[in-house]
Amino acid sequence: MSKSSNESVSEQKKLDVTKWFESLRDQICISFETLENEHVGPFSEKPAGRFERTEWNRPDQAGDGGGGIISLMRGRVFEKVGVNISVVKGIFSDELKEKIKGANKNKYFWAAGISVVAHPLSPLVPAAHMNTRHIITSESWFGGGADLTPYYPDQFDTKSFHLALKNACDKYNEEYYPKFKKWCDDYFFLPHRNEPRGVGGIFYDELNTQNWDHDFAFTREVGKTFLKSYSLIVSERKNKPWTKEQRDYQLERRGRYVEFNLLHDRGTQFGLKTGGNLEAIFMSLPPTVSW
Amino acid sequence: MSKSSNESVSEQKKLDVTKWFESLRDQICISFETLENEHVGPFSEKPAGRFERTEWNRPDQAGDGGGGIISLMRGRVFEKVGVNISVVKGIFSDELKEKIKGANKNKYFWAAGISVVAHPLSPLVPAAHMNTRHIITSESWFGGGADLTPYYPDQFDTKSFHLALKNACDKYNEEYYPKFKKWCDDYFFLPHRNEPRGVGGIFYDELNTQNWDHDFAFTREVGKTFLKSYSLIVSERKNKPWTKEQRDYQLERRGRYVEFNLLHDRGTQFGLKTGGNLEAIFMSLPPTVSW
Repeated sequence: MSKSSNESVSEQKKLDVTKWFESLRDQICISFETLENEHVGPFSEKPAGRFERTEWNRPDQAGDGGGGIISLMRGRVFEKVGVNISVVKGIFSDELKEKIKGANKNKYFWAAGISVVAHPLSPLVPAAHMNTRHIITSESWFGGGADLTPYYPDQFDTKSFHLALKNACDKYNEEYYPKFKKWCDDYFFLPHRNEPRGVGGIFYDELNTQNWDHDFAFTREVGKTFLKSYSLIVSERKNKPWTKEQRDYQLERRGRYVEFNLLHDRGTQFGLKTGGNLEAIFMSLPPTVSW
Repeated sequence: MSKSSNESVSEQKKLDVTKWFESLRDQICISFETLENEHVGPFSEKPAGRFERTEWNRPDQAGDGGGGIISLMRGRVFEKVGVNISVVKGIFSDELKEKIKGANKNKYFWAAGISVVAHPLSPLVPAAHMNTRHIITSESWFGGGADLTPYYPDQFDTKSFHLALKNACDKYNEEYYPKFKKWCDDYFFLPHRNEPRGVGGIFYDELNTQNWDHDFAFTREVGKTFLKSYSLIVSERKNKPWTKEQRDYQLERRGRYVEFNLLHDRGTQFGLKTGGNLEAIFMSLPPTVSW
């Protein structure tokens, strides 16, 4: 066994996680391209969008730091949507060693994840974010979540999105949804404006029930539930015409999204501090914004 | 004398500083409106822009925390330009008391300043920033600077802007320009992209030569020099036609401006931490941005 491996999780499990994130990425890209194909609403005279992939590598002091693949689409339904999958590994810096669970015992880490951020063109279609990950130090855990940011919140969308996530959670543990919903509300909050980023969803981290298969299954469930629920919302809302005033309001509210991601998001700060790939980090930023 | 006053600088001097910032604001607004009036280049069919003023007040635990006035114009030469003047006073929080010079001896502070951020519509006209301020704790000092952010850097503009600032500095102290130029280069730098924000200018802080009149005169000189030099650059460049590709590039590069202001700028962080006026803090953000 190489000195950079983490013994807490088997190589087979790492492979299974990696394959799942690739598979989920493929399902998301196919679903979103289908929404582009089937679009008959505003701007349907433009060509349907297609995902384009860019690979990136991550330097690490231990040598091979892993990397990832960004799938990015700029279409007629999705003004910008990115799906990033990554498998990174290496040695934590001294600063991070103290902050990351289990990193003080074993400085080697392995992490894989998927991150999706969708910014639809229509101000009537909510923006959305989903991210799940598996991190291995001397300990191991899953984390992630999914949340919705509508600019014109629709009660039906908010309810159906939360209900889908609640049902997904309840299959695994009835305490998950209330706990993870609150975590999401607390996390996606702009203190300087005293307002939430959107209408929430779920957020969880350091999940390890001592049953790896159970935790991995829950993480797969979150990804599948997000894809199904969000695709339905996009499909229901995308054909409705909108006004210039609504579009202007969307561009202004997207400023809040940027403020959150650059001022407060721990993921962005973590990425920048660990020399993460800039294109992958800033993939989350909206395509057009106004202040 | 009230308990909240700072004895290191007389009330008369505070009044003189306040009047100067108001006067400079008026000169800037008149000059920029004149550039709007005289415009004959692209988009000259649109009406000339006019500044609109908004007052804001700052709450403070000591009671009256002062406030400011934002003058904002969205025109045909300046897509967005803001001039904010403020006179704020009060009590530093425990966190800030340790960070601000002289605040540990006397928690009362008084600060006045002017801040200008211009985002022209044309990608061929540089964006620009100027800020000068006077801060009084148990000590007192001046600070500020001016810098240029062209998206299509023009050697002549960069040289003329720096030469004007050098001449202004040299009248007061020949060591100022090289020192303040380097300070500006160091400050307006995006470490995560390893690139400067623009082509620089000057930046200075905690300036106190023990000759208050001299330091105040230098600060006035910086303001006047910025106005004259930048107005000339705008006037020279604004009539030239540009392409959609150049405009797209400008919107993309403006993203860097946002990244700097939200991720790195100490002024933004200071403003948010001290409960500053959000409209005044985010006045600096470009009107339209793309990622």
